[in-house]
Amino acid sequence: MRGLMQQTPLTIDSIFRYTERHHGDKTIVTNSPTGPVRTTYAEWAVRTRKLAGVLDTLGISADGRVGTFAWNSARHLELYFAVPSTGRVLHTLNIRLFPEQLTYIANHAEDEAVFVDRTVLPLLWPLIDTMTTVRHVVVMDDGGDNEIPDDPRVSLYEDHIAAAEPVDFRVEDENTAASMCYTSGTTGNPKGVLYSHRSTVLHTMAVVQPNVFGMGETDVVMPVVPMFHANAWGLAQAAPAVGASMVFPGPMMQPKALADLIVDEGVTFTAGVPTIWQGVLPELAGREHVLRDIGCGGSAVPMALSEAYRERVGLPILQAWGMTETHPVATSARLPRRLFDGSDDDKAAYRARAGIPFMGVEVRIVEAGTTDELPWDDVATGELQVRGSTTALDYYNPDAGVELATPDGWMRTGDVAAIDPHGSVRIADRTKDLIKSGGEWISSVDLENAIMSHPKVKEAAVIGIPDPKWDERPLACVVVAEGEELTADEVISHITPMVAKWWLPEAVEFIDEVPKTSVGKFSKKDLRTRFADYQRS
Amino acid sequence: MRGLMQQTPLTIDSIFRYTERHHGDKTIVTNSPTGPVRTTYAEWAVRTRKLAGVLDTLGISADGRVGTFAWNSARHLELYFAVPSTGRVLHTLNIRLFPEQLTYIANHAEDEAVFVDRTVLPLLWPLIDTMTTVRHVVVMDDGGDNEIPDDPRVSLYEDHIAAAEPVDFRVEDENTAASMCYTSGTTGNPKGVLYSHRSTVLHTMAVVQPNVFGMGETDVVMPVVPMFHANAWGLAQAAPAVGASMVFPGPMMQPKALADLIVDEGVTFTAGVPTIWQGVLPELAGREHVLRDIGCGGSAVPMALSEAYRERVGLPILQAWGMTETHPVATSARLPRRLFDGSDDDKAAYRARAGIPFMGVEVRIVEAGTTDELPWDDVATGELQVRGSTTALDYYNPDAGVELATPDGWMRTGDVAAIDPHGSVRIADRTKDLIKSGGEWISSVDLENAIMSHPKVKEAAVIGIPDPKWDERPLACVVVAEGEELTADEVISHITPMVAKWWLPEAVEFIDEVPKTSVGKFSKKDLRTRFADYQRS
Ligand SMILES: Nc1ncnc2c1ncn2[C@@H]1O[C@H](COP(=O)(O)OP(=O)(O)OP(=O)(O)O)[C@@H](O)[C@H]1O
Ligand SMILES: Nc1ncnc2c1ncn2[C@@H]1O[C@H](COP(=O)(O)OP(=O)(O)OP(=O)(O)O)[C@@H](O)[C@H]1O
Ligand SMILES: [Mg+2]
Ligand SMILES: [Mg+2]
Repeated sequence: MRGLMQQTPLTIDSIFRYTERHHGDKTIVTNSPTGPVRTTYAEWAVRTRKLAGVLDTLGISADGRVGTFAWNSARHLELYFAVPSTGRVLHTLNIRLFPEQLTYIANHAEDEAVFVDRTVLPLLWPLIDTMTTVRHVVVMDDGGDNEIPDDPRVSLYEDHIAAAEPVDFRVEDENTAASMCYTSGTTGNPKGVLYSHRSTVLHTMAVVQPNVFGMGETDVVMPVVPMFHANAWGLAQAAPAVGASMVFPGPMMQPKALADLIVDEGVTFTAGVPTIWQGVLPELAGREHVLRDIGCGGSAVPMALSEAYRERVGLPILQAWGMTETHPVATSARLPRRLFDGSDDDKAAYRARAGIPFMGVEVRIVEAGTTDELPWDDVATGELQVRGSTTALDYYNPDAGVELATPDGWMRTGDVAAIDPHGSVRIADRTKDLIKSGGEWISSVDLENAIMSHPKVKEAAVIGIPDPKWDERPLACVVVAEGEELTADEVISHITPMVAKWWLPEAVEFIDEVPKTSVGKFSKKDLRTRFADYQRS
Repeated sequence: MRGLMQQTPLTIDSIFRYTERHHGDKTIVTNSPTGPVRTTYAEWAVRTRKLAGVLDTLGISADGRVGTFAWNSARHLELYFAVPSTGRVLHTLNIRLFPEQLTYIANHAEDEAVFVDRTVLPLLWPLIDTMTTVRHVVVMDDGGDNEIPDDPRVSLYEDHIAAAEPVDFRVEDENTAASMCYTSGTTGNPKGVLYSHRSTVLHTMAVVQPNVFGMGETDVVMPVVPMFHANAWGLAQAAPAVGASMVFPGPMMQPKALADLIVDEGVTFTAGVPTIWQGVLPELAGREHVLRDIGCGGSAVPMALSEAYRERVGLPILQAWGMTETHPVATSARLPRRLFDGSDDDKAAYRARAGIPFMGVEVRIVEAGTTDELPWDDVATGELQVRGSTTALDYYNPDAGVELATPDGWMRTGDVAAIDPHGSVRIADRTKDLIKSGGEWISSVDLENAIMSHPKVKEAAVIGIPDPKWDERPLACVVVAEGEELTADEVISHITPMVAKWWLPEAVEFIDEVPKTSVGKFSKKDLRTRFADYQRS
């Protein structure tokens, strides 16, 4: 027997129409070198409808990929909705990728157009001839005076909008592709994930839950996570879907500019990777704000960072775990009720976990290379695998040999984790970052967490270096906090009570900065290259 | 182009598995004459899996309807999940319906079994021979000493559970029917609505949003709304889906028992119809509690009631609007950000509205009998129509002539409303309760609200009485608060400044009690019958 309910497809254009009809007066603020620029969802909606018309005028195919190369902004939000709402596929290019990677990705996705912020045009334009499918470069003037090339492919966003008529749109099949996002390229070449309308709406409804980010009409949401990084963690759909106002940093990503925006615009929810919050901390500490939650993920959130926020900003960091392949949010570590009366240490330890999935995502850990589930005892570690409506089935045209799905229908994450009896996930490491020592594994993440709890340490990354006897041994790469001094012995004696003896790093190297990936993660690949021939001095 | 995401069906059993795996330690409390009985989701999950086996043993058909005739309880929650998770259809019978209506409904749904609380067995058993498809009566012993008939059809719930093995279940098609709920019968015979798994999951994800009920793991949720009334407003799926603990009143529906439960069990969220909160108010006022929200709907929520809660309990009432046909929640009146700095009066006025729909539900008002949309100016009133994934397409085997859908695919509500520019709905009345006076409409709801703002009025219902000149004129039926005295003139002069002159009731009748429907709504049908031949004295 079938239910007798209306069959309304779950589509991004239905979020759009909702925001347009019910939250037109709510504001969107985009920061710029000349100060914040303000608009409303009502104005945004008219422009988004016009943009849909522009895509037709430009002759973008019915399911054509439309690239963006842009900061977080109200214009980027127009693209986020206009492109998929016309049945086309939004492809957010990461402005910080290497040129070869950008070319590879734009060609792999077969982008027909790229919408580019004027401030980053010099990064894109030199590559344009290598992007063989790109027929249009539409420049969005976000300030500055970068020269706009005189080329038949180039046109101006605002010219198009001024000339366009608003159009209606409605996607009929919720399984239609909506957007395409490539992974961050932390471990190798970025891989393409193709989200559907259905998965996008379900992810949206998941992240607004109180257990996850908890978003409502009374919020002011600022995505610091770039709109080209993993679907902006869902914030660019979630805020409109609940009528929350939005604040975008634009190109103003400096810690002070971000802290000012949080304070001045009354931001209640924001999210970004740990290195961002590391930078913002001194700028925000001690100031008055109305933040309710600071979401953080993309790489391990050091306990010391979260605790520093709790002490100096007044709220701890809310950790979430996910991947481009999971839309990206899959778990969150909101403090459970049973810990309300717990010690500060217990609370901090919980917040250092990835947390539990929301309803709709299932997790398991398995013995590497098998489908044998490991117990949820918080001791056993194995590959974390997930499944659910917001989980990728496969990559878009993957390289030969890349298998995302297991034979029994789960998705491999490449992360190694333990799960406690409540089903709360603790990420031990990426498979590729684990350090294999004497046939056993050492978690680089745990070691980093321990080292970063030293007050004089600014950052620390631990990698495996070849060892004739043990196979690999940990090398700690440590950045000392400004104006401080620190010795290797001090580092080792600080962490000695925290980890097993055989985990203690073989050596400590003091470096100026941990190299970062295009989205601000520790790039251990780069560190491994740098220390490939490491000799203990 | 299709997205490349996993296709995971949205099913009730996936909520079940989630709760089982991640929230086993959270508690379910059921009140009883001998005090609260405690269990956990872990125990509930084992029993629910066993119950699924029992349904097989009883030989219930693959899509058989399984009736329940029960209070709100942990056992009822077992049925809420076991029945649909095996592909069968849960049919919650309203224990307060008239015998003929019960027989009609059970036969209309073709229930194969009825699971009945021992305390209400005497209401069901005399009808059992009229319920021609019912082969099994399974008695759930919730206390008391009602005799259990010695009949081959009768068996005991706990005997079955004790003998059963837990089974696995997984519904493959999200459009499978999950449960069946008949409307309250306020205006006529109850009509059957057939929810699907998909619609149930989407409704669950909607109501947990901060804009609606806002539910998370840290909540303690008490559905006072009966589990046989409109899918318990989604609470029986929402609380498990976010890992919130639950508190059920069982048969202890007396105001004092409810207030005690709220206080003693640390309830943070509860919901029920206005008459319930009217009764609970004096029992809860002045006591310490941790309530965060009191959801209310099913009929107009008098402003005076909400304000009384704000003043005497510390929080106003959170109004929602919906119908059995909308799962049932469709709109909610959480105070929007723009009113944060508003006056108390403006806030109270907003809370007296039905509010705005959540993303996924669309609303419109139309000129009666047409599909012509009326403006959202809060002045124009017309029939409210809705559409979306949680909206019924049609009734289950409707009577000839009953048309739920409009020709253009919206659902008729039978309610008359205005919509303001924000898309916030204000219910003026039911079409059937509007009073037609001199070719214009008078809203009985507005008049009731005005009268009930008099401190000496306990309840008031306004109906139309035939009038030779004006067609109909309003008659106010007023219940005076205990120990108070009130005259018709006092009533009229109290409301004179609040309503148009020609709206002023023709007469005021003082009555002992407003007759209530089976779910505690004002029964204007009964009042109209009583005053059919009304002569002004
Ligand atoms: N809370 C977290 N704690 C630890 N690691 C995290 C957390 N959140 C995300 N991660 C890491 O980020 C990964 C997902 O990141 P993303 O999809 O941005 O690309 P990437 O994995 O960094 O790049 P690539 O897959 O191209 O190498 C996860 O697999 C995990 O390793
Ligand atoms: N917040 C509210 N304000 C005013 N009326 C409400 C509100 N919420 C619900 N209602 C009324 O309740 C109705 C839905 O109730 P329900 O589905 O329980 O059955 P019913 O309409 O009372 O009974 P029947 O359809 O059998 O006559 C709505 O159509 C509306 O008239
Ligand atoms: Mg990855
Ligand atoms: Mg009705």
